[in-house]
Amino acid sequence: MYQLYSYFRSSAAYRVRIALNLKGLDYDIIPVHLVRDGGQQLKPEYQALNPDSLVPTFVDGDEVMNQSMAIIEYLDEVHPELALLPADALGRARVRALAQSIACEIHPLNNLRVLRYLKHDMKVSEEAKNAWYVHWIEQGFTAFEKRLAAQGQPGKFCYGDTPTMADCCLIPQVYNAERFNVDLTPFPRIAVINAHCLSLDAFAKAAPGAQPDAE
Amino acid sequence: MYQLYSYFRSSAAYRVRIALNLKGLDYDIIPVHLVRDGGQQLKPEYQALNPDSLVPTFVDGDEVMNQSMAIIEYLDEVHPELALLPADALGRARVRALAQSIACEIHPLNNLRVLRYLKHDMKVSEEAKNAWYVHWIEQGFTAFEKRLAAQGQPGKFCYGDTPTMADCCLIPQVYNAERFNVDLTPFPRIAVINAHCLSLDAFAKAAPGAQPDAE
Repeated sequence: MYQLYSYFRSSAAYRVRIALNLKGLDYDIIPVHLVRDGGQQLKPEYQALNPDSLVPTFVDGDEVMNQSMAIIEYLDEVHPELALLPADALGRARVRALAQSIACEIHPLNNLRVLRYLKHDMKVSEEAKNAWYVHWIEQGFTAFEKRLAAQGQPGKFCYGDTPTMADCCLIPQVYNAERFNVDLTPFPRIAVINAHCLSLDAFAKAAPGAQPDAE
Repeated sequence: MYQLYSYFRSSAAYRVRIALNLKGLDYDIIPVHLVRDGGQQLKPEYQALNPDSLVPTFVDGDEVMNQSMAIIEYLDEVHPELALLPADALGRARVRALAQSIACEIHPLNNLRVLRYLKHDMKVSEEAKNAWYVHWIEQGFTAFEKRLAAQGQPGKFCYGDTPTMADCCLIPQVYNAERFNVDLTPFPRIAVINAHCLSLDAFAKAAPGAQPDAE
């Protein structure tokens, strides 16, 4: 039995929940509340498991792992069934680039700790903070939509005919976009993929609203 | 012969240059000046190669690839000699987590386009912008140093006895830190790894000052 330190709204934890569900693996959720108690991720007990004080943290027996994409690749290597990366090197590069264009270009800028820094250290207004949030999603989704088009992706997933690590990263980012009322009309490929993925059990069960710590 | 669209100071391009050099691969550098002409990465010709308008872009024959970590993994799969990832799944998860803790938690926040947004859109002062830059490096390096300690890494590289993708990401980030006068004293493990790596040809030849477009 695996353990996943998770927060229902964390899109990085959401990515790993999707991957675990797609592979049909059992896991216990250990909730880490990012707001309550001044942020449970900042407690020394949790920092010992995750020096960046971020969720998720994944536990396999005695081994503790961090970073959502590293965890997903680990799961894909240890449980190859329902592969989340293509078999060929070029396909793998494409899927990783799609995943990283979200995990490295959009999400880090909209992380809770970053929004807090903007608000508390930079004294930025609520309005400017929200504009910042939406800006990076719109810019990133514009690039992502172009990537999908350039790769001739007309389908129901980001790459090929099955879900990959790219879908594990995209769907949680769309959830964030919708929370901040980003208009998805300019991103028709993303909208199709999102609707299809959310119709699948593995994605639906990983969604924030379906979590034991949902509010 | 490979081609790498690069900017001498880009730490993401620097990562890929290190990987190419470690593997002894020949490549042509095609400079993309991120400041001149209003930013050459924003020209339509370049955006067609890289929808995120970021460097690097890597070209292998007819195939165009983006995202530095995806490119490094591709190189490692196509040219397995001098492996940049360990052979075991757990080791690979560790190295990827180290790389991602830089590429997802530090670097995206200090990217040129982000600094520009802070300055031009948010009208943040030069002083506040520099404090932001240093804050994310110090916070990220504190976590990175803890990761190295937790993994019992006393050596000259981030993981094990040979250079990995983690070192490809760390050394360029230290270069950025030094440009912004971050004190490395609190990070002795990082400092040792940095000094050792820079003594190696593959790293030294990838450094910004050694590039054809260096200023």
